[in-house]
Amino acid sequence: MLYKTLAICVATANAYTLRTRPVRMDVASATATTEVVPTNNCVGTEIFGDNWDAIENDRTPKTDKEKVVVLGSGWAAVKFVQNIDTTKMDVTVISPRNFFLFTPFLPSVTVGTVESRTVVESMRSLVQYDARPIDRKIKDKLFSDIDPENFETAKFYESKCVKIDPTTNRIFCQDVSTSNEQYTITYDKLVIGVGGGVDTFNTPGVRENALFLKEVDDAMNIRRQVLEAFEGAALVDDPEEKRKRASFVVVGAGPTGLEFAAELNDCIQEDFVKLFPTEVEQSSVTLVSSSKSLLSTYDKRVSDFTGALLSESDVKLQTGARVVEVKKDSVVIKDKESGDVFEIPSACTLWSTGVAPIPVVKDFIEGVPEQTKRHGVYVDRTMKAVGTDNVFALGDCASVMSRGKAMIDDLKASYEVKAGECVDGGYCEIADDLVMPKKEAMALMDDLAKKYPVSKSFTMAGQYQDRIAGILDRDLSETVTRDDFMKAVDDCYSGLRSLPPTAQVAGQQGSYLAKQFNGETTADFQYFHKGSMAYVGQNKAAAQVSMLKSFLPEFMQGLPIVGDDIVLTGTLAEWVWRVLYLDMQISNRNKLQVAFDWVKISLFGRCVSRY
Amino acid sequence: MLYKTLAICVATANAYTLRTRPVRMDVASATATTEVVPTNNCVGTEIFGDNWDAIENDRTPKTDKEKVVVLGSGWAAVKFVQNIDTTKMDVTVISPRNFFLFTPFLPSVTVGTVESRTVVESMRSLVQYDARPIDRKIKDKLFSDIDPENFETAKFYESKCVKIDPTTNRIFCQDVSTSNEQYTITYDKLVIGVGGGVDTFNTPGVRENALFLKEVDDAMNIRRQVLEAFEGAALVDDPEEKRKRASFVVVGAGPTGLEFAAELNDCIQEDFVKLFPTEVEQSSVTLVSSSKSLLSTYDKRVSDFTGALLSESDVKLQTGARVVEVKKDSVVIKDKESGDVFEIPSACTLWSTGVAPIPVVKDFIEGVPEQTKRHGVYVDRTMKAVGTDNVFALGDCASVMSRGKAMIDDLKASYEVKAGECVDGGYCEIADDLVMPKKEAMALMDDLAKKYPVSKSFTMAGQYQDRIAGILDRDLSETVTRDDFMKAVDDCYSGLRSLPPTAQVAGQQGSYLAKQFNGETTADFQYFHKGSMAYVGQNKAAAQVSMLKSFLPEFMQGLPIVGDDIVLTGTLAEWVWRVLYLDMQISNRNKLQVAFDWVKISLFGRCVSRY
Repeated sequence: MLYKTLAICVATANAYTLRTRPVRMDVASATATTEVVPTNNCVGTEIFGDNWDAIENDRTPKTDKEKVVVLGSGWAAVKFVQNIDTTKMDVTVISPRNFFLFTPFLPSVTVGTVESRTVVESMRSLVQYDARPIDRKIKDKLFSDIDPENFETAKFYESKCVKIDPTTNRIFCQDVSTSNEQYTITYDKLVIGVGGGVDTFNTPGVRENALFLKEVDDAMNIRRQVLEAFEGAALVDDPEEKRKRASFVVVGAGPTGLEFAAELNDCIQEDFVKLFPTEVEQSSVTLVSSSKSLLSTYDKRVSDFTGALLSESDVKLQTGARVVEVKKDSVVIKDKESGDVFEIPSACTLWSTGVAPIPVVKDFIEGVPEQTKRHGVYVDRTMKAVGTDNVFALGDCASVMSRGKAMIDDLKASYEVKAGECVDGGYCEIADDLVMPKKEAMALMDDLAKKYPVSKSFTMAGQYQDRIAGILDRDLSETVTRDDFMKAVDDCYSGLRSLPPTAQVAGQQGSYLAKQFNGETTADFQYFHKGSMAYVGQNKAAAQVSMLKSFLPEFMQGLPIVGDDIVLTGTLAEWVWRVLYLDMQISNRNKLQVAFDWVKISLFGRCVSRY
Repeated sequence: MLYKTLAICVATANAYTLRTRPVRMDVASATATTEVVPTNNCVGTEIFGDNWDAIENDRTPKTDKEKVVVLGSGWAAVKFVQNIDTTKMDVTVISPRNFFLFTPFLPSVTVGTVESRTVVESMRSLVQYDARPIDRKIKDKLFSDIDPENFETAKFYESKCVKIDPTTNRIFCQDVSTSNEQYTITYDKLVIGVGGGVDTFNTPGVRENALFLKEVDDAMNIRRQVLEAFEGAALVDDPEEKRKRASFVVVGAGPTGLEFAAELNDCIQEDFVKLFPTEVEQSSVTLVSSSKSLLSTYDKRVSDFTGALLSESDVKLQTGARVVEVKKDSVVIKDKESGDVFEIPSACTLWSTGVAPIPVVKDFIEGVPEQTKRHGVYVDRTMKAVGTDNVFALGDCASVMSRGKAMIDDLKASYEVKAGECVDGGYCEIADDLVMPKKEAMALMDDLAKKYPVSKSFTMAGQYQDRIAGILDRDLSETVTRDDFMKAVDDCYSGLRSLPPTAQVAGQQGSYLAKQFNGETTADFQYFHKGSMAYVGQNKAAAQVSMLKSFLPEFMQGLPIVGDDIVLTGTLAEWVWRVLYLDMQISNRNKLQVAFDWVKISLFGRCVSRY
């Protein structure tokens, strides 16, 4: 699960979800597999039975154009639909969630630093001409003569796709509103952008007792439960009982877990302290991480800063620890080093680690023999699902075929050159075997990481750096043989099963696929890493960011003018974090709302009304 | 139910509620009586059994001060707690809702014209020194030497009171958070301000199929359901089926129902029309009123304007009609005049008529023999519950003893004088029987209404005016005998069972009781009617308001400098409506939020994301 915590910015949560109808949720819980908590799904067969052909209601558009059906309303689906040429294709978007969710703000929504309405954007607005990015509007006008008058809007259906049949090019859908209508649609091309569910790693009690943070309802629920915990604590006088009722555990020190812990701690120390003074004295937030460092796969300076700041704060850290069980009001933890098992109270446990396919995707994978990956739809570098001609997958539910041999060959060739230089420069002790000093080998790995940005966090960050160093120099000779270097390269890329499940990846894939469908590109998908950011509490953030790159329009980000990454920490980074997130908002409405929420909280604090 | 629709501003909803925990709600629904929908309650015995004495947990404060316990977090409770002298009394506030709700904005929240967080205010903030009104802070300083440093905060417990035992001065409470803790508190004085439930008048299907609008959760639920209806309508092509799915019925043309219909219609015509164009063509909002006019008990000019504007708008009116049954997707209506029964489709039916006591109040009333009123706690004009020495009730759950004989005697004496003047002036035909022209008698009633503001809407508004005219002149002689005049006065005051269930009444009662407890007054409670307002859609409002009075601090509102009422309609009234509601916000945070929401909606429209 290394790749999971390599999340950039924050894990996406464009999950194909349905949370507003508790009754359905019960069905979902009852039918989900033991491994995955589909924050969302009714398994198809629960609704339809197995008799798919009995569904007579066919909503396939009557059109001569190519019929493109998009599943989802997250980063991938939105960026796709904002860029697709609807004059050439008939586009239908289907999602049980009728809005896009700005996932990086979910931790803020849990305590009200931004409000829930601030992080959502209606899909029906996003399919309009006005929602298209500036560069797309220019292209629309220049190449397709599309303007606000003749623009054709993509259709949107608020429904859940419960079954994909790639043999007949049909999907089976269910309305999620009161009517429960069932229907089929036949597609020419299908784009799956439904996100992922939560992987519990089969840990006992997670499904029953932990909370997740994938959807806006999750965030609102957490807010309610945190307030409930403090109100409950205010009802008892015994300090020990207060402590139990106002303790919180966060499992997973990736960006979501970390930012939630930071936001919750800020909220307690800044606002609750005035309204629940005696309860706050007993309150605690514990962050459990299976690795020794936090954000362990980020740039080491970011990771170190985060660790230092959090250990100074009131957040308790349990690093190098594994959660054995989540109980109703406690969490059982095992220290990986000492093997000690201990239990800490938790009124409310957030589980924020692991992404796994949701049932409709799992079912699809199982139905296509060429689909060999179990953690997502295996797609080639054009985002096309292996084993199909016309099904594409994007974002968290996709597992992109590694660039494979070409990249590894390049890395190995670089080694030969570098090692040759070392020989010439007199660095190498055993010239005929091309052995180079360890320091040089590490620097080479680092250089290569810059050349292949995808791999960056995997090679040189935190723990992984130690691991690579170990492989490079197994005999502790401080020199690296060709054999060991190749082993390190292989190890590095074996971890690279797919791109990390982040907003950045999903969004770029969505834009790319639209361009491909529009006929604007025939190239493979190329990911540009813009950077990683995390809010670490106390008005401080950690950011590893190519400033210039992030402000440029997407089509310019690959240009060589773009400089190296910058690592920022502290209050300055918080401002960069704020400016970039403000800039990332899709609509002006949401930009205004975000700014307003921040100003409001800074003036009046967070609202502690529980509903 | 005349008094119900006499709501001023909008009916209060300081109901003593619990909506965030669906499981509990099921219990509540299952145990409620058939008459009342307690938007809120678990009946006490469901939780405690009948064995009250088994509860050992006693949370009675350890103090020598007088122990005042306040139930509720609505207008009455908040105004009480903002004015009570906590140095003299030990004050504990208990409510299952840990926030105050600005009820007049509930119709706006249903469609997002203002957001849910904009209309709430944490009780824990409201018990702080900062939340006290300016004039109270001055009094605090001058008379009790209270300042921010030595101010004692009232305690707040987020719990539900499930049983009041006035014989032992104890209440029985249940924590509504996870712990479900049960406890008792012994009081010296008890203040009940728990609001009311919804009266269904035993209409079949209301409990099962209608929505209510008393709490912020209700408003959020309505917003969800309205969007669900439109998303469902977008899934069908048949216009007739679209029409069924996008039809809405509002029962009750008091301010809540009227404003909801107006807001919903605005939302459909201003925002949905862009995003659901074909659905809006088929959509309809129907307002059902049992009387022939809307807001029938408001000033006639307000009522007439409202009717005229709504009949020009897209809101369909069904006046003089009674709802026979509310079905899952339709409403059965009977025209009172013709007796015709017909059924209209309704994807979502709002029931906004009728207030009835919630179970804990009902149980209290039944336990005290002197409590003879069934629609609320019968209190004398010092707000003390009849049959008790130390229980007080405020707001929607209280039924204030009529001023009774004194006022009626005054009215009758005025008649003698006026009739005498008529004789002297030669107006009266039969001098010895003191008969006066009908016009004079009506003017006299109007003058008297001004003298007794409470009675104003009852005497001279809309339908009631016709009724009184009918009584005054039964023989259609255009003259009024003393006997008929007295009958009209009696009729007028027999309608005055208690003050209307409005925010204004509840708030004034709360302030009054605090003053009484502080020892600042020994007088009876006196209600000052500040006016009535309603938003009628299309950026227009109707307001009957004493401008000067509304802007003055409460203690000055009784002064004779305050002039007559002004009736405003149209866009100007909308601005008055906005300014007054902005001014009524308790905190600066909420003032800012309201203003921001209004600006945001005017710039970007309403958010149609459904969650």
